[in-house]
Amino acid sequence: MKLSKLVGTRIKEVPNGANIKSHILLLRAGYIKQVSTGIFSLLPPAQRVNLKIQNIMREEMNKLGGQEVQFPVVMPRELWEMSGRYNSIKSEMVRLKDRANHDMVLGMTHEEAAVHMLMNNVTSYDELPCMIYQIQTKFRDEPRPRAGLIRAREFTMKDAYSFHTTQEDLDAFYKKAYDAYIRIFKRIGFKNFIVVEGDNGMMGGKVSHEYMAVTPSGEDSLVICPKCHYSSNMEVAVSKRDENDHAVAGDIEEIFTGNAHTIEEVCAFLEIDAKHTAKAVCYKAERDGSLVLAFLRGDHEINELKLQKFVKSELTPADTEEFGLYAGNIGFLNLNLPQNSHVFFDVSLKGLENLVTGANKKDFHLKNVSMSRDVPNAEYVDISLVKEGERCIHCGEVLQFTRGIEIGNIFQLGTKYTNTMNMKINMPDGSQINPIMGCYGIGIGRSLASIIEEKADEKGLVWPMTIAPWQVHFCPLRLDDENVATIADELYKQMSDAGLEVLYDDRNLSAGIKLTDSELMGIPIRVVISPKTMQEQQAEITMRESGEKFFIPIKDLVSELKEIIKGEIDEIEKK
Amino acid sequence: MKLSKLVGTRIKEVPNGANIKSHILLLRAGYIKQVSTGIFSLLPPAQRVNLKIQNIMREEMNKLGGQEVQFPVVMPRELWEMSGRYNSIKSEMVRLKDRANHDMVLGMTHEEAAVHMLMNNVTSYDELPCMIYQIQTKFRDEPRPRAGLIRAREFTMKDAYSFHTTQEDLDAFYKKAYDAYIRIFKRIGFKNFIVVEGDNGMMGGKVSHEYMAVTPSGEDSLVICPKCHYSSNMEVAVSKRDENDHAVAGDIEEIFTGNAHTIEEVCAFLEIDAKHTAKAVCYKAERDGSLVLAFLRGDHEINELKLQKFVKSELTPADTEEFGLYAGNIGFLNLNLPQNSHVFFDVSLKGLENLVTGANKKDFHLKNVSMSRDVPNAEYVDISLVKEGERCIHCGEVLQFTRGIEIGNIFQLGTKYTNTMNMKINMPDGSQINPIMGCYGIGIGRSLASIIEEKADEKGLVWPMTIAPWQVHFCPLRLDDENVATIADELYKQMSDAGLEVLYDDRNLSAGIKLTDSELMGIPIRVVISPKTMQEQQAEITMRESGEKFFIPIKDLVSELKEIIKGEIDEIEKK
Repeated sequence: MKLSKLVGTRIKEVPNGANIKSHILLLRAGYIKQVSTGIFSLLPPAQRVNLKIQNIMREEMNKLGGQEVQFPVVMPRELWEMSGRYNSIKSEMVRLKDRANHDMVLGMTHEEAAVHMLMNNVTSYDELPCMIYQIQTKFRDEPRPRAGLIRAREFTMKDAYSFHTTQEDLDAFYKKAYDAYIRIFKRIGFKNFIVVEGDNGMMGGKVSHEYMAVTPSGEDSLVICPKCHYSSNMEVAVSKRDENDHAVAGDIEEIFTGNAHTIEEVCAFLEIDAKHTAKAVCYKAERDGSLVLAFLRGDHEINELKLQKFVKSELTPADTEEFGLYAGNIGFLNLNLPQNSHVFFDVSLKGLENLVTGANKKDFHLKNVSMSRDVPNAEYVDISLVKEGERCIHCGEVLQFTRGIEIGNIFQLGTKYTNTMNMKINMPDGSQINPIMGCYGIGIGRSLASIIEEKADEKGLVWPMTIAPWQVHFCPLRLDDENVATIADELYKQMSDAGLEVLYDDRNLSAGIKLTDSELMGIPIRVVISPKTMQEQQAEITMRESGEKFFIPIKDLVSELKEIIKGEIDEIEKK
Repeated sequence: MKLSKLVGTRIKEVPNGANIKSHILLLRAGYIKQVSTGIFSLLPPAQRVNLKIQNIMREEMNKLGGQEVQFPVVMPRELWEMSGRYNSIKSEMVRLKDRANHDMVLGMTHEEAAVHMLMNNVTSYDELPCMIYQIQTKFRDEPRPRAGLIRAREFTMKDAYSFHTTQEDLDAFYKKAYDAYIRIFKRIGFKNFIVVEGDNGMMGGKVSHEYMAVTPSGEDSLVICPKCHYSSNMEVAVSKRDENDHAVAGDIEEIFTGNAHTIEEVCAFLEIDAKHTAKAVCYKAERDGSLVLAFLRGDHEINELKLQKFVKSELTPADTEEFGLYAGNIGFLNLNLPQNSHVFFDVSLKGLENLVTGANKKDFHLKNVSMSRDVPNAEYVDISLVKEGERCIHCGEVLQFTRGIEIGNIFQLGTKYTNTMNMKINMPDGSQINPIMGCYGIGIGRSLASIIEEKADEKGLVWPMTIAPWQVHFCPLRLDDENVATIADELYKQMSDAGLEVLYDDRNLSAGIKLTDSELMGIPIRVVISPKTMQEQQAEITMRESGEKFFIPIKDLVSELKEIIKGEIDEIEKK
C-alpha cells in the first residue's frame, strides 16, 4: 500500500472531545472517524487490524470445535419476549418499528438467537456439547458512550454460545474456553491482563469471569492479591477486614452533635476516627418500594451491587423523611421502621465496641454502642467495598488496587434461556432436559483500543506484530534523489512479492514529516533508506516498540525482515 | 467437521412459505433459519459459503486497489439529511430514536457514510482516484420480502465507492470495476449471467449496469439480443419498433363507440387490430400535481420508469375527471388541458396513418387520424416497453426475453453526494471541485441463493468448488464394520491433515439416509468407502454436479482429491 493513496489524514492536534490515549491516537493517526456519539467508521488501517483480530478469534474458536454462524442484527420482539428480556432490559436496547408497525430490536447480545437457531435443529444428547459463534455488529445504547472504541454504542463482537447436557460437561468446556480466551488475548499482544471473577448482570447465571486489560485509564476498579493471584472486579471483591480495637464497651450515652451529619463532620466534632463509628446508607427497593437500610463501619463504603444481590432488587437512594428517619442521625438502636423494611449489617461492624452511631433523633448521636451487647442477634453480610490495606481472604497478603478495561467475559448461563424458550434435548433414558448454556464474548474494537492503552507511547501507536495493519513501514528519504527513488520502488516490489505487508511512504516530503508519521501510525518495523544509507548499501531498521535501531545490507533486506517478523510473531504467540 | 456434530437438521418436506428452489433447499438442507419476515440466521454451512464469497470479493476489490473500511449500521439523521435522502427515501429505510430521542436510521446503502469518511481526509487531486469498500450488514425494509435470501430485509453486502477528479478517470475506473464484477461472478461459479444497462433509481447519476443471474425464477424481465449481445433490463430496454402500414390517411371521422373504452373493447367494436389505434395513459406528477398524458400505439405498453425520467418526477395514476378528460375517449386532437400539463408521444406512433384514437368526447372516437398530417409538430420519445417480436436497435436481430435476479450493480453517481455534502478536492490549478463518484454493490446472500437457482437439481444443492462449504463429503457406509470405521477415521485424518475441507458423515446410519443427505447438502465431491469398496482397496467418488462416478485407490485418495479440487477451481477461475 502506498501511503500517498491511503485514505486518512494524520494530524498533530489532540482532537476535541478525546481524552484517552487510544481515542486520541486513533483519531490523530487516521484510523477512525466519528459518525455520531459512540458510533465510528473504521478507516483502512483500523479495518486491517480489525480483520486480523477477527482471524485470531476465528482460529481459537475453531480449535475449540466452534462452528461459525451469523445471527441477525434486527430481531423481532417475540424472540426477546420468550426470554423475558424484552421488558427486563431497559433503554440500553434500541427498539424500532418496521413498516408493518411490528416491534423489532437491535441485537445487543444473541442468547435468544442462539437458542432459536438450535431449537428443533439440535435435539439429541449425542449432538452435544456444541458451540456456535459469530462475529457481528452489535448496538448498545450506552447512557454515556465515551473513550472512543472503548465504550462505543455500535461495535463488532465475537460472541459464542455453548450447549451441554450436564453441569460437569459445561464446567469442562468452560475451562477450555477460559484458556482459549487467554490465548486470544496473548496472541493479540496483551502482556498485562488478568482474569477476575465477574458479575453476571443482565446475563443471568452464576459463574462468570472477566478478562481485564490492566491500565490506569480503565473504567473498572480491580483488586489483586500479589501473592496468591486472587483477583476480582471491585464490584464483587471480598477481603479480610482489618482489625479494630475491642475494648469493653462503656454505657451508651446520647450526645448532642448538632449540624454534624456526615461521618467526617461527626468525627471532627467528636475528635474520633471514622473506624469507631457506624454509618447508615438508605435505599428504596425498586421491586416494592420498601426501605433498605445498610449499616457499615464509618470508614467503609457501601458496595451497591453486593447489596442488590441480597435485596434481589435494583436500588435507588431513599428519601429518608418519607420513612420517618433523620438523615445524618440514623442508627440501628431505637429504630422505628415500616414492616417491610430490610436492615443489613456489614461484616466490617462485626465484634466492634464503643461505636458512635446515629441516635434516630434529630441532632443526636449515641456513644459506646456495642455490637455484641446491643444488637446480639445481628447477622453480618458482606456489602462493603474492599478497602486499601485490607488482606486477601485466601492467603492473608495485603491486597493491591488497580484499574482495568473489560476486554472479554465468559458466563455460565445455566438453563435460563433454554428453559424460558423451551428448548429440549432428548436424553438416552428417554427423558427431556433443557440444555445448560455457556456464553463467551469479546468486543473487537475494545480489544483494539485496549492494546493501544497498553502499548502506545508519547509518539503514537505501537502495534504488536500479530495485529499490526502492516508489518513494515517503508520510509525512503530524499525521494527527489533518482537513485533512492529507483531503489525504493524496487525494494517495495521485492518486499511485496515476498508476501511482506508493507506500507510504502512514497511521498517526497521531509524526513521530519515522514518519520513522525511513521511513529504515529505505529507499524512494528520501520525501514529507512536514504542517500546516506545507500552509500553503504544498507537500510536502517527501527523497531517501533523497543526503539532498537540497526542496519541490514539491502541485499539481505527481504530475508532478514522475514526473520524479524517471524521472530516477533513467535515471541507473542508462544508466551 | 463431523456431520454428527454439525448444527442443523436436514428435512425432506418442503417448508411452509418457501416456493423458490434456493429458499426451499437452504431450509431443507439446514443452511438457514428464518428469524422474522425477510430476516434469517445463517447456520454453519451457509456461513462457510458466505465467508468464501466474501473472500473472493475482497481479493477482487483489493486487486482494483480498493481499501477495506467499515461504516456503521446505525447512522444519524443529519448524515442523510445532507444528501436529501432522509426525506426522499420512504419506508424502505428504517428510522429509530435512540435513548436521547435522536433520530437515527439503519444503513441501507452507504454513499453518505463514504463521503463523510473521505471529507477532510482526502483533500488533494493526487490522492485520487481511490476506492473504499466494506462488507457489512444492511437493512432494507422491503414491502414484500420474499424468496428467502433473494429478497431479504437484512443482508450482507459488499459495497464500494470510488472518487475521481474527472469523468474520464471515472470512466476508466468504472470499466475496470465492471470487469472485476464479471470476474467475481465467474469465480463464484455463475455460468449464466449477463450485464444489462440499469436504472439508477434512488442512487442518482446516469450510467449504471446490473449483473443479472439468468433464471426463470428471477423477478426482473430482461431483453437480450442473441446476435450482438445487447442486453437490458426491461425497465430501460429499447428496440426498433415493428413496421406498420403507411396507407395514405383518409379524412377524419368521428364515430360513436359507446361503452367501448379499453383498447380491446374499441378494437372488437370496430373490428380492427390494436396496432391501428393510439391509446392514452394519464398520470399525475408527484412533484407539482400536474397532468402527464402519454400516447402510444394501442398494442404497446407504457414503461413508467422511462416516462418518469422525462417528467423528472415520480408518477401516480391520474383521476381523469379532475382534469376534464373522458376516460376511454382520450385522444391528442381537440385536447383542452391545464397549462402546466405534459404530453408525450411514444416512438411507436411515429409515421402512422389511419389511426383510431379517442375524440375527447364522451362515447366517441376518431378514425383516419394521421400523425404526420394532424400532429405535424409531435416530438417522439421512447416511453414504451419493448415488445415480443421487436428487433435489436443495434443489429436488427429479433430480441429475446428472459428473466433474471439482480446479483450486482454498478453506478456512475456523478457529484450528487459530493456536491450536496460539500466535499471538496483541491486541484493543481488552485481551484476546488466536488469529486465524481462511482458505487459498486453486491448482495452476498443473494449471490449465494442465485447460484443455487442456477445449479441445484431435484436432489438438492450443487455448490461450485470455489464457494462450497466443504470440498469433500466423506461418506463411509457400514460404520458398524470395525474395519470400515478404523479406515474411515484414518482417512478423515489424512484428508484433514492435507488441508482438504472435509465433512465427515460419521453417523452409523443406512446408506440411503447418508447418500440422500449428501445429495441434499450439495458438496462437490462425495467419497464413499464400504466393506465392498474396501475389498478392492478403493474409494468410490461421485461428482455432485455431473453425476460422474469413478474409483480411486485408497492409497492415492488424498493426492487424487487434491488434483480434482485444483482442476475444478482452475476450471471455474479461468473461464
